[in-house]
Amino acid sequence: MVGADGGPAVLGVLGVGVVDPSTPVIRADDPGVTRGDGCFEGCRLQVGPDGIGIIDKLDAHLARMTRSAASLEIPFDEPAWRALVAETAAEWTHPGEAAVKLLLTRGPASGGGPAGFVWITPLPADYPRLRRDGLRVITLDRGVGSAAFAGAGWLLGGVKTLSYAINVAAQREGARRGADDVLFVSADGMVLEAPTGSVVWSFGRTLHTTPTGASGILAGTTQRLLFERAAAAGWRTADTRATLDELHSADVVWLVSSVRGPVDVVELDGKARTRLPAVDAEIRRLCGF
Amino acid sequence: MVGADGGPAVLGVLGVGVVDPSTPVIRADDPGVTRGDGCFEGCRLQVGPDGIGIIDKLDAHLARMTRSAASLEIPFDEPAWRALVAETAAEWTHPGEAAVKLLLTRGPASGGGPAGFVWITPLPADYPRLRRDGLRVITLDRGVGSAAFAGAGWLLGGVKTLSYAINVAAQREGARRGADDVLFVSADGMVLEAPTGSVVWSFGRTLHTTPTGASGILAGTTQRLLFERAAAAGWRTADTRATLDELHSADVVWLVSSVRGPVDVVELDGKARTRLPAVDAEIRRLCGF
Repeated sequence: MVGADGGPAVLGVLGVGVVDPSTPVIRADDPGVTRGDGCFEGCRLQVGPDGIGIIDKLDAHLARMTRSAASLEIPFDEPAWRALVAETAAEWTHPGEAAVKLLLTRGPASGGGPAGFVWITPLPADYPRLRRDGLRVITLDRGVGSAAFAGAGWLLGGVKTLSYAINVAAQREGARRGADDVLFVSADGMVLEAPTGSVVWSFGRTLHTTPTGASGILAGTTQRLLFERAAAAGWRTADTRATLDELHSADVVWLVSSVRGPVDVVELDGKARTRLPAVDAEIRRLCGF
Repeated sequence: MVGADGGPAVLGVLGVGVVDPSTPVIRADDPGVTRGDGCFEGCRLQVGPDGIGIIDKLDAHLARMTRSAASLEIPFDEPAWRALVAETAAEWTHPGEAAVKLLLTRGPASGGGPAGFVWITPLPADYPRLRRDGLRVITLDRGVGSAAFAGAGWLLGGVKTLSYAINVAAQREGARRGADDVLFVSADGMVLEAPTGSVVWSFGRTLHTTPTGASGILAGTTQRLLFERAAAAGWRTADTRATLDELHSADVVWLVSSVRGPVDVVELDGKARTRLPAVDAEIRRLCGF
């Protein structure tokens, strides 16, 4: 199928199945759009020359979506979603990588239950270049303390909600300043996460990432997979609260996300970083990229 | 027209006009739903016995929506919106009060420009009771400092975005604790705003509210109107940074919003407050309620 822009897209709607991708799917009284009240996942689909596709770590994405939906008190019918993902992905047969979004909303206020869809599109056009050249990153203050989310469930820490306006505004601010991406730091100066990814850094043979929980950051599915595989490959791994100065002194810093994969940071707040191709290649391989 | 729940609703779609209110209006690749990337306004419509309706302070709502859209870098065609509001409101002829939502999104990623709609529904069923009985309110920590938004445009302070998941999660938390509504306080203990309204309090003949700007709170259209009219009626008005202790010592505390109007707080964090009917009646009248 073809999206309105002429580019390919496949759309599967919860309770309906695959429809024309230009079909409007969200009603005017759905808090998913009126309040950003819902959750989502973004996954990578890899299609072989035979047209058969596999979604990376789908179980981990569905598990996180289950947790997000539970935090928002939105019913999540995992078997129905798994069937919708399979049905939708079967329609995407372009060999190579693609991006799959799963999106769940509370559903119309007038009734009918949760709404949702699966949306498949090509890999964003700039990802091959960014993977090759690495990321120029600026840090932005997220305005919250690094322990603000402890015991404050209403702040939805760790929940991958649809309320991402600040995340995309931060990425627009990064683009204005000539950066490829952004790293959020807390009001008290601690490293948090990227607007759409985790941060991982290395000192020697130890990999570090920001702890979840009180920090409010998301548990990254690719970061988790990396740490499991890296541990099996002889790395030490650690959840570490780090200042920006500590991050600057790391050997390698990566922003890690499910579709773009791990990409090393080549410039952080204007300071060039030396790339370590052998280490970087190992980390990418461990992540499946 | 009739919504899917059998209750009345009127839906006007930008670039289209009035359509059946159950028509899905938002596409799967619109950041309005995928990222909560858009803005909105909520207004009150009052319809007389003759079926003629007037929207309270429409100019102030359109002015704030213009500012919100500019902060988000989304085009906002004010004359087109004014025409859509008029066309949609003309279809609503039930005498009495109604709620009007104006909602603007960035529009489909595949192109076509901003999307948006006007949505009219009856006054929420619990508003008459809440106005009569007053509000039992709990405070919740918003996790941000009271000056976190100074110079941090990417945090979208003062922008009425669609990313309200925390606001509605806070209201759910309030309901769980038996409260009618919530008041956010900053990480450093200062009074901010309600999830969907401003806070105003009085000491003698002075009205206070939280300053906008560094606090990140929204400029309330009803609060602004109140302060203008109150000043003309001999009140003093002040933008005041207040602690929760200072708020507890106020004569009257109101949560103020466009559709529910100003409603006095009768219980704050479990402490009963003495109602002052004469003062309250004057404030409600000044707000047009």
